[in-house]
Amino acid sequence: MNIDTHKARDFCEAIFQGYGFSLDESKIITDVLLRADLYGIESHGIHRLVRYHDEITSGQVDVKAKLEIVHETGISACVDANKAMGQLSGVQAMNMAINKAKTNGCGMVTVRNSNHYGIASFYTEMAAAEDLIGVCMTNTEAICVPTFGSEAMTGTNALALAMPAEPFTFSYDASTTVVPRGKLEVYRKNGEPLPHNWALDANGKPCTDAAVVIDNIIAKAGGGIAPLGGMGTLHGGHKGYGLSIIVDLFSAVFSGGLTSNYVNRKPGLTGICHYFMAIDYGIFGEKAAIKSGMSKFLQELRDSKKAEGYSRIYTHGERETELMAKRINGQIPVNEKTLEEMKNIAGSLKLELSL
Amino acid sequence: MNIDTHKARDFCEAIFQGYGFSLDESKIITDVLLRADLYGIESHGIHRLVRYHDEITSGQVDVKAKLEIVHETGISACVDANKAMGQLSGVQAMNMAINKAKTNGCGMVTVRNSNHYGIASFYTEMAAAEDLIGVCMTNTEAICVPTFGSEAMTGTNALALAMPAEPFTFSYDASTTVVPRGKLEVYRKNGEPLPHNWALDANGKPCTDAAVVIDNIIAKAGGGIAPLGGMGTLHGGHKGYGLSIIVDLFSAVFSGGLTSNYVNRKPGLTGICHYFMAIDYGIFGEKAAIKSGMSKFLQELRDSKKAEGYSRIYTHGERETELMAKRINGQIPVNEKTLEEMKNIAGSLKLELSL
Repeated sequence: MNIDTHKARDFCEAIFQGYGFSLDESKIITDVLLRADLYGIESHGIHRLVRYHDEITSGQVDVKAKLEIVHETGISACVDANKAMGQLSGVQAMNMAINKAKTNGCGMVTVRNSNHYGIASFYTEMAAAEDLIGVCMTNTEAICVPTFGSEAMTGTNALALAMPAEPFTFSYDASTTVVPRGKLEVYRKNGEPLPHNWALDANGKPCTDAAVVIDNIIAKAGGGIAPLGGMGTLHGGHKGYGLSIIVDLFSAVFSGGLTSNYVNRKPGLTGICHYFMAIDYGIFGEKAAIKSGMSKFLQELRDSKKAEGYSRIYTHGERETELMAKRINGQIPVNEKTLEEMKNIAGSLKLELSL
Repeated sequence: MNIDTHKARDFCEAIFQGYGFSLDESKIITDVLLRADLYGIESHGIHRLVRYHDEITSGQVDVKAKLEIVHETGISACVDANKAMGQLSGVQAMNMAINKAKTNGCGMVTVRNSNHYGIASFYTEMAAAEDLIGVCMTNTEAICVPTFGSEAMTGTNALALAMPAEPFTFSYDASTTVVPRGKLEVYRKNGEPLPHNWALDANGKPCTDAAVVIDNIIAKAGGGIAPLGGMGTLHGGHKGYGLSIIVDLFSAVFSGGLTSNYVNRKPGLTGICHYFMAIDYGIFGEKAAIKSGMSKFLQELRDSKKAEGYSRIYTHGERETELMAKRINGQIPVNEKTLEEMKNIAGSLKLELSL
């Protein structure tokens, strides 16, 4: 099914105001949420509304929370989000990083006690829109098993980076696991076995049964998803494992917050941590020359020889830019279950909303 | 075979002085080179002496080169290495980054027209030794094929990060390819088929014949190694591909140097580019608390439940630290071919050296 993008926006803004967020706050949260649908990353879009509903109504998200600066320098800050909605933490913290980068060349902001913030590329692209580089990381509940381990210790731990280029921004945004949890949910729904090397059972053995893996993750019974590079070291799983540690370092260790293995362990607190960085790449030389160097390199990658059976090589951010152009004044897809959940949420807030 | 570490050091210092490097310069180059052997990363150690010999005698490395600062701010610099030995570029550029971090909280130095610099962790650990975070990247000759491509466009493009912790520094240092080229050479030598999903033939099809892949890389005939995550997107190959672009961005695009697809394309010039960053993590809060938070997290990872059949989970830098403690006043392994090459090099420089 498809719904009108503008109607979806009005719907979400009304819902978030229904929880007690201001109009401005509701617009920000909706912007981040719908960007995922516009980019074709449905797992992080309107589909997630029900999860946010649960987090807000259960008190994991504090609607009235204000961000608090714990430590600050001209190029850095440590922020306590005090259980704010992740999108509000994210936009405020990235704006701090952007302002520091504009003044001092670089800004790094680490954030503790936040919540799920949607797609990371929303924030990195805020920096790119100001002709800066944006970098963003976040930890999550532990779902990723260390190399040679059998217990999930790090999160999806996505890492994102955006750099201005023509004809479109280079925008990398990816988990440091072989796949995010949402992919496993699709396999469970379809009753298909998981590809080998994606997931582990409670004993740390390869497991292709998505239901077993997901149930174990939820019950914290052991096992989980392999790091990028897969299980063991043959295909570089120790590299993905190391990258996931780096994400926890920048988001949770620097902020004095909870590392992934402590996230979602207490009632009323997710404890999710983020990291935001903006760099004015003019600190390295003439900006126009650097940007055009990046554009040229990306074009060379896209123009390079294709594998047999493929007609196109993408650079990161290309697909999403194309899809958003189609959807922004058109429609976004939602499945029936999501639509049902949306209606229930509106009902529980006593809002009469059309879609 | 094993050779005495101190004798190997004396040997290398004499060799590099034989090319015309000063004693101080020869000590630096030898330090970086032997650190790889001490860490058990033989591919980057004394085994590589013959390659440096060729690069120095062919004029790709300029023994008399001086680094030149092209652009500079309080937190950054762009440096032209003017074909200096990579280890000399690396140590000088990381020292610049360290000094900027000590003064201004953060230092970022991008370097063009350098050469192969050995193991990246040598430089990141220079920063860690000063109680700073070190980050390091380098591009190389193109060996990595973009997702859906059939032509190598990015390099091994290793990414390294060191963060002080107890009982030892967290030190991540890994290529953004599924494996580095050296691994393929081992399979060729042993006549074994490559694991699936490591490498591609000239048409971008999976290829398990190491000889074919290596010969194609050398002849620039197409094909190469898959990015971390493998071929296609099923296991996240597009993530490794994106990380390799990020390494070229920081090293080659920011410095105005050659991206991987132009490296080693002209006689007398490799054109390799690097990036060095140091961050004083005190910009985020109290250093002792942050360092102890990192130490605790790493210990929890090592202490977490092991997979069936495994008794130990490592964190990055642990194996290397252990091995160096054994080897630093003992012996390092070299194979017969390397020993033969070392003797030939000494002979060509008319040096009489014992090992």
